[in-house]
Amino acid sequence: MRRALELAATPGVPAGPNPRVGCVILGADGAALGEGFHRGTGTAHAEVDALRSAGEDARGATAVVTLEPCNHTGRTGPCARALVDAGIRRVVFAQGDTSPVAAGGTATLRAAGVEVESGLMAEEARALNRAWTFAVEHGRPYVTWKFATTLDGRSAAADGTSRWVSSRAARRDTHRLRGECDVMLVGSNTVAVDDPELTVRDEVDEPLPHQPLRVVVGERDLPTDRRVFNDRAETLQLRTHDPREVLDELFARGRQHVFLEGGPTLAAAFLAADLVDEVVAYVAPMLLGAGRAAVADLGITTIADAVHLPVADVHVLQGHDGEDTNVRVTMRRS
Amino acid sequence: MRRALELAATPGVPAGPNPRVGCVILGADGAALGEGFHRGTGTAHAEVDALRSAGEDARGATAVVTLEPCNHTGRTGPCARALVDAGIRRVVFAQGDTSPVAAGGTATLRAAGVEVESGLMAEEARALNRAWTFAVEHGRPYVTWKFATTLDGRSAAADGTSRWVSSRAARRDTHRLRGECDVMLVGSNTVAVDDPELTVRDEVDEPLPHQPLRVVVGERDLPTDRRVFNDRAETLQLRTHDPREVLDELFARGRQHVFLEGGPTLAAAFLAADLVDEVVAYVAPMLLGAGRAAVADLGITTIADAVHLPVADVHVLQGHDGEDTNVRVTMRRS
Repeated sequence: MRRALELAATPGVPAGPNPRVGCVILGADGAALGEGFHRGTGTAHAEVDALRSAGEDARGATAVVTLEPCNHTGRTGPCARALVDAGIRRVVFAQGDTSPVAAGGTATLRAAGVEVESGLMAEEARALNRAWTFAVEHGRPYVTWKFATTLDGRSAAADGTSRWVSSRAARRDTHRLRGECDVMLVGSNTVAVDDPELTVRDEVDEPLPHQPLRVVVGERDLPTDRRVFNDRAETLQLRTHDPREVLDELFARGRQHVFLEGGPTLAAAFLAADLVDEVVAYVAPMLLGAGRAAVADLGITTIADAVHLPVADVHVLQGHDGEDTNVRVTMRRS
Repeated sequence: MRRALELAATPGVPAGPNPRVGCVILGADGAALGEGFHRGTGTAHAEVDALRSAGEDARGATAVVTLEPCNHTGRTGPCARALVDAGIRRVVFAQGDTSPVAAGGTATLRAAGVEVESGLMAEEARALNRAWTFAVEHGRPYVTWKFATTLDGRSAAADGTSRWVSSRAARRDTHRLRGECDVMLVGSNTVAVDDPELTVRDEVDEPLPHQPLRVVVGERDLPTDRRVFNDRAETLQLRTHDPREVLDELFARGRQHVFLEGGPTLAAAFLAADLVDEVVAYVAPMLLGAGRAAVADLGITTIADAVHLPVADVHVLQGHDGEDTNVRVTMRRS
């Protein structure tokens, strides 16, 4: 299962509607007969990929897979059926698949006489597809809110200057995280004032071939020359301020992971509605003592009401060439 | 030298006016003949401690010591002399001693025909006695400013509530850092309002036998029933608000490391005067969006003027029993 999880996490798979899945076909002696993983929308599922690599050896073998084999015919056939047809005798999977379209693989397998075990390393498998799992279970996209701040909670000085609160390493890291999402969300005010392009760029600052959907939230009309409307990626304008409505609409469009970047008012609306699942803060080693607050007023007046999420990860982004070291702190709903 | 540094860093040595020093006596074949370290004011210096442990074997041997052997007679005799008398043929030290009272050890040794080498692992040795080294070189105590903050830079909610922004692990860690200093500094307003005892307590919440000097800064008269005036430690009230004057007075009293804890106005005065050498922030995984700022107004209006120190250390203070995990970020003048 560890190997199957590694396969599932193979770098370079573009974010898409499907979960990341890995599969290993094992012989009676425990030797690997075949391996496979899902490479993104429209390509073979992990099980089919692994069966292909095992060939005739799959007959009588065990399939170890990170997600319950699917039971539906979409762009590809149901994996449960493919496993049965290949003569697999036993299936061990980590995470159960409760998505309405794909659930039921276990029943299909058992009905065909295949032995099924589940739950092995299920937590690791869930973490691998955190957003997908969340979206399937909660019926809305997972929301990651990212902000940059000085150590004393300021996003800009009193005169509005903020270049660069974040280091180059932090900005690169932000692009990496953006690339794991399928939506980048900003308010219309940010588009009007800052005119960000909202694309994901790679190490050499080139836009990636697969871009998340750019979503602009807000009632106001925007000049069409804003960079967010260029042809580097798709863009959607949602004329509402209600976070719930925004997420419903995006879920209906098959989106699972929203990367919320700004501005502070929009973020505050999501926080106040308890619709932020993960907070990523890039902390710069600076103190300002005054200036623009990194987090806008949330209507919180007493400490017991603070937005309070467990620390999931702390990462030091080492500065190079005289640049600042920044600290990335991730808080995540557990 | 690595072993000598380990000896110097032996836990349990109380903070005092003397630097931490370790010493190893090596035979011609490189075997250790004796080891020693300084255990605090009034006890033997590391060289003498090591010579004692080596006994007659020291004749013709090499002494490896983390600090240049001292040249003055204080509570103990000069170490340079003791090394010569013991028949040491060669001395290798890490950090040079430029303190007015103790400098000159190398000259004394060489005059007696002892071979002297210096500089090996000097950076490590300087780091071991950061505050002592700084005080010797700059003529004032080293200043560490500690504050606790939410991830968005708040020390309390709008209604003043703040229990507990810091986790228990962070509060314990603060006591450990306090114990490495020889002064704890607060403003008179903090004493009047919060009535802290300002003692260093151990793992089981007992006061340590050696306590830093408690210093209260400010013009106002204070009720004598404040806990800071109890007999658990010495207390000094300095009737000034000028950070420079405060440090001069403390340096004149032989103090080397000030732990600045509050309140925000006092800290702002030290920051604005560029008299903070190290910033230790305990960051709690909370967002408040409003409330008391962790860092008071410093008169900074543009990003280029931000207080900006390199990140020296990031440490995750794991929460236990359902407590928050906190993150300690240390910024330090390089």
